[in-house]
Amino acid sequence: MQLEEQVINWRRNFHRFPEQGFLEMRTASIVASVLDELGFDLQMGKSVMKEEACMGKPNAEITDNHVLWAKQHGAIERFLPFFQEGYTGIVASLQTNRPGPTVAFRFDMDALPIVESDSFDHAPMHLGFRSISEGTMHACGHDAHTAIGLGLATLLSEHQAQLTGVIKLIFQPAEEGTRGAKAMASAGVVDDVDYFIAAHIGTGVPKHHFVAANNGFLATSKLDITFSGKSSHAGSEPQKGKNALLAAASAALNMHAVSRHSSGDSRVNVGELHAGSGRNIVANHATMKVETRGETSEVNDYMKEQIENIVDGAARMYDVEQTIELAGEAISCKCSEQLAKELAQIANQHSFIENVTLLSEDNAGSEDATYFLNAVQERGGQATYCIFGTDLAAGHHHEKFDIDEDTLLPAVEILFETACKFGKVEKQS
Amino acid sequence: MQLEEQVINWRRNFHRFPEQGFLEMRTASIVASVLDELGFDLQMGKSVMKEEACMGKPNAEITDNHVLWAKQHGAIERFLPFFQEGYTGIVASLQTNRPGPTVAFRFDMDALPIVESDSFDHAPMHLGFRSISEGTMHACGHDAHTAIGLGLATLLSEHQAQLTGVIKLIFQPAEEGTRGAKAMASAGVVDDVDYFIAAHIGTGVPKHHFVAANNGFLATSKLDITFSGKSSHAGSEPQKGKNALLAAASAALNMHAVSRHSSGDSRVNVGELHAGSGRNIVANHATMKVETRGETSEVNDYMKEQIENIVDGAARMYDVEQTIELAGEAISCKCSEQLAKELAQIANQHSFIENVTLLSEDNAGSEDATYFLNAVQERGGQATYCIFGTDLAAGHHHEKFDIDEDTLLPAVEILFETACKFGKVEKQS
Amino acid sequence: MQLEEQVINWRRNFHRFPEQGFLEMRTASIVASVLDELGFDLQMGKSVMKEEACMGKPNAEITDNHVLWAKQHGAIERFLPFFQEGYTGIVASLQTNRPGPTVAFRFDMDALPIVESDSFDHAPMHLGFRSISEGTMHACGHDAHTAIGLGLATLLSEHQAQLTGVIKLIFQPAEEGTRGAKAMASAGVVDDVDYFIAAHIGTGVPKHHFVAANNGFLATSKLDITFSGKSSHAGSEPQKGKNALLAAASAALNMHAVSRHSSGDSRVNVGELHAGSGRNIVANHATMKVETRGETSEVNDYMKEQIENIVDGAARMYDVEQTIELAGEAISCKCSEQLAKELAQIANQHSFIENVTLLSEDNAGSEDATYFLNAVQERGGQATYCIFGTDLAAGHHHEKFDIDEDTLLPAVEILFETACKFGKVEKQS
Amino acid sequence: MQLEEQVINWRRNFHRFPEQGFLEMRTASIVASVLDELGFDLQMGKSVMKEEACMGKPNAEITDNHVLWAKQHGAIERFLPFFQEGYTGIVASLQTNRPGPTVAFRFDMDALPIVESDSFDHAPMHLGFRSISEGTMHACGHDAHTAIGLGLATLLSEHQAQLTGVIKLIFQPAEEGTRGAKAMASAGVVDDVDYFIAAHIGTGVPKHHFVAANNGFLATSKLDITFSGKSSHAGSEPQKGKNALLAAASAALNMHAVSRHSSGDSRVNVGELHAGSGRNIVANHATMKVETRGETSEVNDYMKEQIENIVDGAARMYDVEQTIELAGEAISCKCSEQLAKELAQIANQHSFIENVTLLSEDNAGSEDATYFLNAVQERGGQATYCIFGTDLAAGHHHEKFDIDEDTLLPAVEILFETACKFGKVEKQS
Repeated sequence: MQLEEQVINWRRNFHRFPEQGFLEMRTASIVASVLDELGFDLQMGKSVMKEEACMGKPNAEITDNHVLWAKQHGAIERFLPFFQEGYTGIVASLQTNRPGPTVAFRFDMDALPIVESDSFDHAPMHLGFRSISEGTMHACGHDAHTAIGLGLATLLSEHQAQLTGVIKLIFQPAEEGTRGAKAMASAGVVDDVDYFIAAHIGTGVPKHHFVAANNGFLATSKLDITFSGKSSHAGSEPQKGKNALLAAASAALNMHAVSRHSSGDSRVNVGELHAGSGRNIVANHATMKVETRGETSEVNDYMKEQIENIVDGAARMYDVEQTIELAGEAISCKCSEQLAKELAQIANQHSFIENVTLLSEDNAGSEDATYFLNAVQERGGQATYCIFGTDLAAGHHHEKFDIDEDTLLPAVEILFETACKFGKVEKQS
Repeated sequence: MQLEEQVINWRRNFHRFPEQGFLEMRTASIVASVLDELGFDLQMGKSVMKEEACMGKPNAEITDNHVLWAKQHGAIERFLPFFQEGYTGIVASLQTNRPGPTVAFRFDMDALPIVESDSFDHAPMHLGFRSISEGTMHACGHDAHTAIGLGLATLLSEHQAQLTGVIKLIFQPAEEGTRGAKAMASAGVVDDVDYFIAAHIGTGVPKHHFVAANNGFLATSKLDITFSGKSSHAGSEPQKGKNALLAAASAALNMHAVSRHSSGDSRVNVGELHAGSGRNIVANHATMKVETRGETSEVNDYMKEQIENIVDGAARMYDVEQTIELAGEAISCKCSEQLAKELAQIANQHSFIENVTLLSEDNAGSEDATYFLNAVQERGGQATYCIFGTDLAAGHHHEKFDIDEDTLLPAVEILFETACKFGKVEKQS
Repeated sequence: MQLEEQVINWRRNFHRFPEQGFLEMRTASIVASVLDELGFDLQMGKSVMKEEACMGKPNAEITDNHVLWAKQHGAIERFLPFFQEGYTGIVASLQTNRPGPTVAFRFDMDALPIVESDSFDHAPMHLGFRSISEGTMHACGHDAHTAIGLGLATLLSEHQAQLTGVIKLIFQPAEEGTRGAKAMASAGVVDDVDYFIAAHIGTGVPKHHFVAANNGFLATSKLDITFSGKSSHAGSEPQKGKNALLAAASAALNMHAVSRHSSGDSRVNVGELHAGSGRNIVANHATMKVETRGETSEVNDYMKEQIENIVDGAARMYDVEQTIELAGEAISCKCSEQLAKELAQIANQHSFIENVTLLSEDNAGSEDATYFLNAVQERGGQATYCIFGTDLAAGHHHEKFDIDEDTLLPAVEILFETACKFGKVEKQS
Repeated sequence: MQLEEQVINWRRNFHRFPEQGFLEMRTASIVASVLDELGFDLQMGKSVMKEEACMGKPNAEITDNHVLWAKQHGAIERFLPFFQEGYTGIVASLQTNRPGPTVAFRFDMDALPIVESDSFDHAPMHLGFRSISEGTMHACGHDAHTAIGLGLATLLSEHQAQLTGVIKLIFQPAEEGTRGAKAMASAGVVDDVDYFIAAHIGTGVPKHHFVAANNGFLATSKLDITFSGKSSHAGSEPQKGKNALLAAASAALNMHAVSRHSSGDSRVNVGELHAGSGRNIVANHATMKVETRGETSEVNDYMKEQIENIVDGAARMYDVEQTIELAGEAISCKCSEQLAKELAQIANQHSFIENVTLLSEDNAGSEDATYFLNAVQERGGQATYCIFGTDLAAGHHHEKFDIDEDTLLPAVEILFETACKFGKVEKQS
């Protein structure tokens, strides 16, 4: 089978069996199995994920149920023990045993809580690889990222005799909600890395285009907030209640009123608020899903601190208890210019690429690969976040999201050329 | 079988198969069947309930499903057609064909959305009549009310030769949430009534006590409120959203800030608020369950009007759409003093009763029997709302609520004496 | 000069030179001078007012300026030293040196911050005793109260040979805002009192009517609240501000949302809110004038506690400092039934009185004489608060408020009869 | 007298007699007198200001009083009639009667409501030209701008034989609060202008530095908002009030919660809120001073529209009336690149200037000269806003703000060179 066909097959396989963050057991088991066969050294699960740095991880009941699902849907059983508690990260290393730098690539594997379109004009539907899990969908392209990672592994394995140094492939869980990268970075998986590349497909960049460095990521914090008060009959003795609903309503309003910051863009959103158990009961419980963002980590930290003050204050107003749980977080980043230039050059030489942008500052949402970029840069390495343009059937996170698979093989090849550039034996000759 | 045993059996039967408002198909079919056998003329369903005055009625899917449940759980099938759309009211008349006044009694039949205790110190549990419907429970005593109504019907039927005028027994759905009485009163079922008596068991009045008139009901309105805006990605273009969550939060806060009223007690409660569909989405939808109360209908109307202003204003603030649906309503009442005195006298003569209170003004929540009382009084009749004391295992609406069944037969007998007082042949002799 | 003419003269004198709470230097000096001439023993100033229990007392600059004003407008200079710091209370005792109970009467002396009407249909205007102090007005009748007190003193002095026990006349400052009584009660001025009577004129009770006991006073707390944050340029670096205006706005809204109380009427009002110093500056300061009320002291205490929570919470929300100063307070009371009956009997016998109400429960605002009533009752004495009806030109606190002076002499005489009833030599004969 | 000395004298004169927006009668009369003597054609008052486009203009009482003040403090009386109603703008034209372009310069004349420092380390204090008007201060440098304008006029007059075309000097009132420029632009004073230059001194740019174009101005709207409700006694019948204070508090909170805009920076500030007349009165009136800003006029318009929705909604919530008055407004601008380059070149050649920045995008607050820039550009002309760096004793709007007067003469000379560049006879030779 040709590599392109193989990569497309992988992508469609992952698309058909999507798994949300920290539940990528089936996906990870397949990834591990392929990498193992290709001769990579594998580190998996808790050894590459710092438990306390995982954010927004589902509880044991959900995780256990999903393991059963994975078993029923083609997971490679011998790798499941590494992932069954939800620590689904993998670091695969190719040791050339020849001196040279360590080059790392990051691929994210998780899907989104979206019901995929069943319209016949949606390619995955009429081609038969629509999600079989109602309510879970690869609507952001991580299925493609994972497949590209395996394609890259294949090329590296085939050409390892010509490589030097160490090549690390990082398969990360739970990028959605910016929940998984911090745990892997905290476990030190990039501490020895000299060159780090993360990549995304699409994001508005058209087919045949390439962006070598994207600085536009907003730092972000995802906060799960609860208020717990005391219920009481609203007619007969309302004064005995401690009103969690009003605490939450007041908090929501004041959160959105947090001042703008002159150092850069900021955002705050109370995306969900659920409170109360009955019309005639003073509500004793409320939950909120909140996120802050900032053009820089400083701005995001400012927003988060204000939110914390407001939650504390709202709880005091109504004499209720509050909790704030960090359910996700990402920082901002600045790509390394030198590395970006080299990537731009490599991409320029690929026949598929017609247009290369060195640096984009466009606001591109948030991304937790930034933890890897910062960790590498702090130790003197270089890091960048690049984008492979592709034509999309519908925007990211849309029920009809779909990529143009023509982009897959060129992406594999450009990443392979990058690995070679920094790790080829002939490099210095 | 003795009457007392029969009444207790009925009560336990209804307790074991509780049905929520507008879903009392099984209960109503059994009530209708008993009354039919006892020789009462029956009017049922839409003929005694004005459709557009029903409030908070479940949708057809829920109603249809419940009909299936009722069939599987002992409903008397020949009566189901009258009730299958959820119009579960019954008016049973005993025509004596002798001149005399029309005397009416109201009994409510619906249960509450409460999970009944399965602790073995809870009598319905260890005696085997705990609710078989998880999440529905007779936790207010309407099972007892319905059983008392059937006991009264039995006595009336046995003694009809001695009665004059017309005796009407009104079995009302959906008293909880004050949703069902208005539809029956609007259908004119008490328009010919000279004397009207509604009764409740318990409510804090101990066993052997009787309250002949209760004026303490608060007028109330139950409002289902929605805000509909426009969703938008909270990171990339928040300004394109129309934030229904903030409209709801602002409305909730300002609703509770509606001014007190100097004419009497008022209440407002936003019991539930649910908004938003995801952390990073500007929320495009919010729902609230709200109730207002007033010591008088005037005060409640004031509260309701303020709430309407606030909902309108909050929607304008955020440029979102709003709807307010009336999901229940009750008015205040003043019992007829003369009728109350006669009831007090009758109760005084019953051996079970040790203590009679003529009039209570204690705040006793809300009750939609007030629509019947007002309708009767407006046409020159007399009406009262009385209370049969009983010792409770736990308060109303509690998962361990239970009555002392000793009170059932005396309640039947006192109501029968009342019917006789106004309808006995020998009355004037 | 006849007593009636004298009392009217006093009333008009005080009306023309009104003084607000804790600034009654001129009034008090005249009262003291008259009482001194009539042979009463005087205690004045700090000896009858506990400094730390004074609430909402003006600062030294205002007090000092007012002393100058008082000197220029007819104050009796030899008494000013007692009052010049604003402790303007007087307790005048008539020691009969014959055994008998101690009977006390309370009169309040302060005026309101209201601009008196200069319309010629306003009697004080066309009769020449309109306030000479623009912005200060006796619009509640305390001018009449003080004059009645001096009239009573005159009769007591004339008839002292026939009296027994001790008669105490208490002239209180700062009843408006309920600021002065607590300081006098705390100083122990009624600790030896067996019978205590406070009186008000008007309050909606018409001429020739008398109310012997008024229980309708709401407990109240007057709170001066500040928020202090940090200013910042709203355009260039808004995030550096700490927004006191938003803290205050949020507090105001949430204060009004404090739950109703099932034990009785409650009230809350943010009557004034002032914040900020410029359109383009993040506001660093905000002040609020707030009051709570409760049908009972328990309810008012509940309201006050919630307000304190809210102020604390709002300050935390915006990371600003807050202060709450008690600017006035009154408790609720229940008049002594026995004493009220005796007063009713005395009033009934007066030719001017046509209608006597023993007890009124009507909400009559708040009144700090309640501190005296409670203190007397706690030690086993009896106390009541009575009302002398009069026809008013306009309601209390209105710029055209005016009483019918016909009521003054009867009021003096009824209080004198009361003093005699409990202190006359011949009483038991 | 040397020109530099003369310019400094003018600046100190204006500094000592500062006048706020639309009250620059004294300043304008002196400016007019000097320009008149120098041979300029003058248009003054309403002929250069569209009445209905003036924003936030003081009322007649304030204006009339200030005319008296101006007369007493050295105004040139014969010019006062043009300015006495507060239309204090001047357009001075030098007609060379030789063909050539029309070049215009804008100078603003108004001072700020700030109490100037009386510390002796504050140069205007120890040199004797501190403001004689307590509470009004030239704390932004408009005194220098006006003096530079007169200096420029002097040079132009001296060298008019060598100039071509028309040179217009625009002296604008009320730049603070962005209130005056729109009225002059609307009157068409730049409709014939080919090249337009506005200048500011300082703004953080150090001495010897020059910025040829500043694009960083935020569009802004200044809104005066009122809510009018109905007062009521908060204790006796609070429900009869219509609470303007709560409407304002709710509006303030929700205004700050207006969403960020992804197209650029936005700002909102409720700088002042004043509501209510007494603690125990439901507040019937509230006023707010609000401003919005936007990186572009589009963003500012979005903010303003949200504010309008919120004010409308808050008024409906509390059933009160509302008004919104525009008290100032400015738009954003983009300087003409070509003109900026020429200015940069001219400045570069001046010996005083060591550092030239072509274009600054730094947020520099708001400025209503943007109306002139846009008007000129819309008709095909070129326009720029430049900055003459100077060392400041303290920041703009600070009580110790002071400039380094060394910058004055170079500023005059560079502007003169600019006029020459576009209007010199020898230009094309």
